[in-house]
Amino acid sequence: MDLDKIKISIIGLGYVGCPLFRLFSKHFECVGLDMNPDTIQRIKDKEFDQGNPAFMDNVYLTTNYADIADCNVHIITVPTPIDHDKNPDISMLKSACSHLAPYIQEGSIVIFESTVAPGTTDEVCIPILEEKSGKKVNIDFGVGYSPERVNVGDENHSTSNTNKIISASSEQTLDVIFRLYSSVIDAPLVKASSIKVAEAAKMYENVQRDVLIALSNEYSKYCHAEGIDIHEVTSCASTKWNFAKAYPGLVGGHCIGVDPYYVIDRAKSKNVQLSLINSARDINENTVVHVAKRFVNCVKKEIGETQTRTLLVLGFSYKKNIGDIRNTKIEKFLQLVSKEFADVDCIDPLVDNNLIEHEYNMLIFTSYQQLKPHYDVCIKMLNHSCFDTFEHNIGHFYSLQQFL
Amino acid sequence: MDLDKIKISIIGLGYVGCPLFRLFSKHFECVGLDMNPDTIQRIKDKEFDQGNPAFMDNVYLTTNYADIADCNVHIITVPTPIDHDKNPDISMLKSACSHLAPYIQEGSIVIFESTVAPGTTDEVCIPILEEKSGKKVNIDFGVGYSPERVNVGDENHSTSNTNKIISASSEQTLDVIFRLYSSVIDAPLVKASSIKVAEAAKMYENVQRDVLIALSNEYSKYCHAEGIDIHEVTSCASTKWNFAKAYPGLVGGHCIGVDPYYVIDRAKSKNVQLSLINSARDINENTVVHVAKRFVNCVKKEIGETQTRTLLVLGFSYKKNIGDIRNTKIEKFLQLVSKEFADVDCIDPLVDNNLIEHEYNMLIFTSYQQLKPHYDVCIKMLNHSCFDTFEHNIGHFYSLQQFL
Repeated sequence: MDLDKIKISIIGLGYVGCPLFRLFSKHFECVGLDMNPDTIQRIKDKEFDQGNPAFMDNVYLTTNYADIADCNVHIITVPTPIDHDKNPDISMLKSACSHLAPYIQEGSIVIFESTVAPGTTDEVCIPILEEKSGKKVNIDFGVGYSPERVNVGDENHSTSNTNKIISASSEQTLDVIFRLYSSVIDAPLVKASSIKVAEAAKMYENVQRDVLIALSNEYSKYCHAEGIDIHEVTSCASTKWNFAKAYPGLVGGHCIGVDPYYVIDRAKSKNVQLSLINSARDINENTVVHVAKRFVNCVKKEIGETQTRTLLVLGFSYKKNIGDIRNTKIEKFLQLVSKEFADVDCIDPLVDNNLIEHEYNMLIFTSYQQLKPHYDVCIKMLNHSCFDTFEHNIGHFYSLQQFL
Repeated sequence: MDLDKIKISIIGLGYVGCPLFRLFSKHFECVGLDMNPDTIQRIKDKEFDQGNPAFMDNVYLTTNYADIADCNVHIITVPTPIDHDKNPDISMLKSACSHLAPYIQEGSIVIFESTVAPGTTDEVCIPILEEKSGKKVNIDFGVGYSPERVNVGDENHSTSNTNKIISASSEQTLDVIFRLYSSVIDAPLVKASSIKVAEAAKMYENVQRDVLIALSNEYSKYCHAEGIDIHEVTSCASTKWNFAKAYPGLVGGHCIGVDPYYVIDRAKSKNVQLSLINSARDINENTVVHVAKRFVNCVKKEIGETQTRTLLVLGFSYKKNIGDIRNTKIEKFLQLVSKEFADVDCIDPLVDNNLIEHEYNMLIFTSYQQLKPHYDVCIKMLNHSCFDTFEHNIGHFYSLQQFL
């Protein structure tokens, strides 16, 4: 395939698709597709705000699959979340394959970037593409898998400067993908010998992170019992050459707290029990309970009873400086502490209130004007930059770090 | 304390004490003490072999505590192993404290480098030193703790070029230890705020390593079920900036496979269950069973039945290029495979046969002349350099890596 003749569609314009779309748009004709018109509008507004009208002219943003019919490379970056029972939910991925299939041209390539259980591309995605297109992989079209490594809010690691794993259904397709990604990514591309290996590598990255944080949360429990500070212990241990720096924390979001369930589920189908990975998940899910207990105990010790006191919680999203509320552990924290205080308010100027009401059925303030004039106790759960200048009439101030 | 007036004793001349002794001897008057006369003789022979007679003249090696009576800094590096039930055995540490105590001079410093459960120095060692010396810590003598980070066989990380954590019973003692270690260690010294923090940091380093290897062993089990190679998966994942490189393996030896039991035991006494750390231990202890199974199944598949075949196992120690047999998992491997073959021999030219007979009651060859003329099957369990040139009449050759 000649790079000059490539026209790319990016399907799914979230935290993965959006930067990819920006990157590829600089070098190739591109169409961005997202089923959610609000997402499309948000991107257009942002580009306009950033004074990129020229950039906007070159691209095409759509909610309609018919608009990508003339593309010959399709990159799928739709979310792969878990449902309420923590089972993998790949409905969006399957839906993207079904919608795309009729528009697959002869000789084109479909690349998946979504995180999935090993085997998913070969056993789920390719069969849908083949069935709905009537075409055969490696004969009529090629398939690739290149797991995204986006770390939202991380200014040091972007899509273009991060090593990228690539894999494909054939050597020929892998060669095109290598040339394609090479043209926009400055960091080395890493060829995996099969799609399954690439899927398993991405899974391993996030599973290992989950395990390292779980170990930190477990060791923190022990350090609390010893009356020593896990943060100091970690920073001392981190001076060893092969120590992996990981601090205790509330693991939320759409990656680390989600992906392990994909591999746990898949392994079960292969009769493999992943006891360590399971144990890590349990620890990270329960850390918020320990944090809430330590916090309430500390407050009781310092100011007496809490039942007549008001509490303000700063931050609701799952991560610093991000408005994303998916799997945020602060929801559980609010549930736990609400029984202990007379009244609990929570504010997060970064979150979208409509999403919270829809997802969690709770009221989170987004404007400081909604706050009461005084709170007896306040705890900062997230170090959003916007909280740096926060001033209010507060009795006692705490931060999450003290209770991790 | 004036550095010019320091005379140092190093108590315990194993893999930690020996390099420390060599290092300090270059700058200070030093006495090396070990209860085992064979250890002393081995060091003398080695120095002589390496043509260091001048070095030998300046130092004093002894088995007698009376010979360190005029030292004012004592560095204790004795082993802290586990017993047969995997309970911490700090008898050598206690014994060193008891023996040393009568010789502690007014104003001197005792520094511990042995890996221990947090709290051990304050709650076990100092009380023994005080009781047996009749002196008080921080009045008559100071105590420090500086955990060793020796990685046996690692040519890149030596005692002198590795960051070193230091801690002490008082600021004043910490200051002397800082100046003392600064004079022989080129890498930064890291001050911990308390001895307990330093103890916990060292524990955390080794516990984390154990957990990372356990995760790799667990993920390997899953990769085997998927028919993909954990080594390739790991090398792909390792291209992510924060992935901690760890490969599957048989965790033996005196550190990683031992230290977690110290913290598990200590945490239990504080009513903290360390489920993840426990789970990691179980996985690493059992990996040899999976390895033996995979090996036997593979051999059966390739050459039919095994019951009439002879097997040669290359390597017995716990680590490449090391003769140390402590907690080697190859003992268990031999037990497991011996039922499956007509005859199993094992050779390791690096190990000390007397120690093996004493510890394991089994015969391990150390010379190639002891081998049978032919073996049907051979498996290389350790990549000792001495095996690189190994040639023999072998039917089928395998290596451990294939079954991890």
